[in-house]
Amino acid sequence: MENKAARHIPETVLKSLALKPFSGVEIGQPEVNYVGHQVNITTGENKVVDSIADVIKKTLKDGMTISFHHHFRNGDYVFNKVMDQIIALGYRNLTLAPSSLTGVMNDKIIAAIKQGVITNITSSGMRGSLGDFISHGGLKQPVIFRSHGNRARSIEEGEIKIDVAFLGVPAADPAGNANGQTGKAVFGSLGYALMDAQYANHVVLLTDNIVDYPCTPASIKQTQVDYVVKVDEVGDPDKIGTGATRFTKDPKELKIAQMVNQVIVNSPYFKNGLSFQTGTGGAALAVSRYLRQSMLDQHVKASFALGGITKPTCDLMDEGLVDKVMDVQDFDKGSAASMAANSNHVEIDASWYADPHNKGAVVNNLDVAILSALQIDTKFNVNVMTGSDGVIRGAIGGHQDAANAKMTIITAPLVRGRNATIVPDVATVVTPGSSIDVVVTERGIAINPARQDLIAALTKVPGLNVVSIEALQQAAEARVGKPKPLAYTDQTVAVVEYRDGSVIDVIKAVKD
Amino acid sequence: MENKAARHIPETVLKSLALKPFSGVEIGQPEVNYVGHQVNITTGENKVVDSIADVIKKTLKDGMTISFHHHFRNGDYVFNKVMDQIIALGYRNLTLAPSSLTGVMNDKIIAAIKQGVITNITSSGMRGSLGDFISHGGLKQPVIFRSHGNRARSIEEGEIKIDVAFLGVPAADPAGNANGQTGKAVFGSLGYALMDAQYANHVVLLTDNIVDYPCTPASIKQTQVDYVVKVDEVGDPDKIGTGATRFTKDPKELKIAQMVNQVIVNSPYFKNGLSFQTGTGGAALAVSRYLRQSMLDQHVKASFALGGITKPTCDLMDEGLVDKVMDVQDFDKGSAASMAANSNHVEIDASWYADPHNKGAVVNNLDVAILSALQIDTKFNVNVMTGSDGVIRGAIGGHQDAANAKMTIITAPLVRGRNATIVPDVATVVTPGSSIDVVVTERGIAINPARQDLIAALTKVPGLNVVSIEALQQAAEARVGKPKPLAYTDQTVAVVEYRDGSVIDVIKAVKD
Repeated sequence: MENKAARHIPETVLKSLALKPFSGVEIGQPEVNYVGHQVNITTGENKVVDSIADVIKKTLKDGMTISFHHHFRNGDYVFNKVMDQIIALGYRNLTLAPSSLTGVMNDKIIAAIKQGVITNITSSGMRGSLGDFISHGGLKQPVIFRSHGNRARSIEEGEIKIDVAFLGVPAADPAGNANGQTGKAVFGSLGYALMDAQYANHVVLLTDNIVDYPCTPASIKQTQVDYVVKVDEVGDPDKIGTGATRFTKDPKELKIAQMVNQVIVNSPYFKNGLSFQTGTGGAALAVSRYLRQSMLDQHVKASFALGGITKPTCDLMDEGLVDKVMDVQDFDKGSAASMAANSNHVEIDASWYADPHNKGAVVNNLDVAILSALQIDTKFNVNVMTGSDGVIRGAIGGHQDAANAKMTIITAPLVRGRNATIVPDVATVVTPGSSIDVVVTERGIAINPARQDLIAALTKVPGLNVVSIEALQQAAEARVGKPKPLAYTDQTVAVVEYRDGSVIDVIKAVKD
Repeated sequence: MENKAARHIPETVLKSLALKPFSGVEIGQPEVNYVGHQVNITTGENKVVDSIADVIKKTLKDGMTISFHHHFRNGDYVFNKVMDQIIALGYRNLTLAPSSLTGVMNDKIIAAIKQGVITNITSSGMRGSLGDFISHGGLKQPVIFRSHGNRARSIEEGEIKIDVAFLGVPAADPAGNANGQTGKAVFGSLGYALMDAQYANHVVLLTDNIVDYPCTPASIKQTQVDYVVKVDEVGDPDKIGTGATRFTKDPKELKIAQMVNQVIVNSPYFKNGLSFQTGTGGAALAVSRYLRQSMLDQHVKASFALGGITKPTCDLMDEGLVDKVMDVQDFDKGSAASMAANSNHVEIDASWYADPHNKGAVVNNLDVAILSALQIDTKFNVNVMTGSDGVIRGAIGGHQDAANAKMTIITAPLVRGRNATIVPDVATVVTPGSSIDVVVTERGIAINPARQDLIAALTKVPGLNVVSIEALQQAAEARVGKPKPLAYTDQTVAVVEYRDGSVIDVIKAVKD
């Protein structure tokens, strides 16, 4: 059948996974039921053990769902330490349900799939060898990709039922109170992991840093934790936030950043009380710099910045230009350190950040979101999941969630190497065009025709080259030519959910 | 039948309420299931309405369970405002399930019972005219008294299923983020109310202070809140913490406080890392003063203070004698202000404080608890619920919960007026003797024979008059004589649960 994003979704996929097709970005006001979880009561003060294998044997059974967080990013030591033991112990048919997957986990996951240890995966995304492996049909069951807000929703509504969560932290006390803000391998906000801590039947902390009771702030609480495993090292501090704070010197990225700033400043949202999510990446970081100057020049103060947070955003808060930083994840050491130092830098969980099925997430209050893209098509649909070769190499992250902002801006270069970024049809629809307002490339700005107010406001801005999305697509095609159509097999290797749990697209195995 | 506290519990009561008899203080390691709750999704940023009646009509149906918190104590305006509307709208058969009840609510509750609006009550306690009314059979169904930890447990396990929680706060933003720390009517920790916010199907905030979004710290989160009702005043700041910080000048209370301090200082728990809960009341507050001097003299620092918190405890933290204050409720303005000023003053919810059926509450890590009593008997059982006339005039509070400490000290004068405090048998068993270690009166100290270690340690302390509990009881009787036996009818007017939900005692209607 064809869903409301005009994508063909196999009925067999919908049926076997009991999923509904995407029917639009409006959430409405349905009544839902949150699930409870199982609690094995422990009254002991000291939950510290030193054997990962023992804890696994006490908590895990074949067929169960296990979870991890990705706050350590490429500095993560926890995932491989745990998976080594799970594989060695001969477990079978596990579902892997982390907040996301990073490259350092790839080899282990591929090995676990090959041995039948992992037979199902749900994640925000995947890259490198694992994406390639999945895109070539390496896993029988389709991977389910969910945004951060949708993962929170799925956990709260019971679609993801975590049996055992293995959560690495840089500091925990013997009873299990823990945070991401103190110790050697700090990463700041534990935002995504807070869902696992609250809803998993068993919660196992791993830490290299047992601190005196009570560990506060207690982002994760002793009430939620079964075991605290002492390990040598939970992560490599130098790889947790690598390079994320670099300011771009790329003239193209700087130009895009300047244009994004002009879009914001000339929008109806640039006034006291403004809120924004800038995300990470070269252009996004440069936006912070231009936005800072505009806020100073025009005496505008923001109420909050949201998201994935970087140090430049914290600097805006320290300078008095942003009142609060609402932080579900830190991208660099500076931001991670800021949370511990400033009570206006607030840790938020993934539900509060972006769950569409609660009583109100912060993204509902967001004015401006700046997001990136691998591809954008002439319907403004965005692909952040598959490359121009059709292979999985991305993550939804908070893309669909933040696109709920009053003005969502996509930044992208017109072409990347020999591939167009603005295309007639994206390979995979991740974020539907109806939630995208402005596309900014170095060649010009395209505004969704549904936003005549923005077209009126931005067309008259001197120097802002407002064009149609078709014009951008044609300019890209003029540069790099028409691409060969991608060749796929019939096998569905992944399902891309929209944030409400409906199916917005599927990903087929690539044919080499 | 007779339970393990040697109290007669009518089988009919156990059967009709589906409750088990008390079988001992050990919780063991049962596996339990936490319940979920219903969520009516609201994506709006602005939940502010100005009519309590409208919100009630949208959320409440006959037969439902409603809840309130008692953090405003005798300064509460919220309860009466809401109940006035509920009564006026003609609702029937509601269950009232607040964290506790204070005197300012009494008249309204009695009126609501008489009109059939309220037909069931569960609370931590009640006093004054309401206790008298219930003790004279004013409510057909027995009231269920639960400790703060037990209420958290009952909510988490679904024994209390709150349909609509009406929660007053001194500050909230339009989306429902709220705390107890800013505004006119500050009370500090929202500890008890956090359970309602997390588990109620509908959460209605009432506030006189709508602040800019996002209100942080967000003790209650927008994800949990359906409506924010703007009212003129939520409470009387002068009555929220009245008198709680007074230092006693009563020589008897000062003597008891000095003896309590000697017990602590000469116990095995007086060393670096000590933790304690002192509670409120004249003697308890004086203990803080003596304990401070002992800590200074002997260079002992505490890891945390727990509980119901008063300013003298915060002062110990500010002075560096206590590392953290773990705070479920503030008893005075000074303590309420401290939470906003010091990140080591930590807001904890009632589950984290004391739920016996989670993965570990702070009371499990508690060294010393100092608690009060209306009566103590020669089995060390404590009554904090009924007076010497058998009438309800107290509250369990955290009594049963904190008695989980490694050393639980009960302070009480030997007699009060013409009534003995140390008696052969308490009128109502609230906290079982097996969890009580030391009873301190101005006439001497009795130690539970189960604690031979404490007997050995304290008997040799010069000036500490260690005697048997029987000797104290006889001394009291010598002063005031044998009391007339109380006369009750057959009607069970209240059930006293132990913290695990079992029935430790029942309260019968008094015969005048």
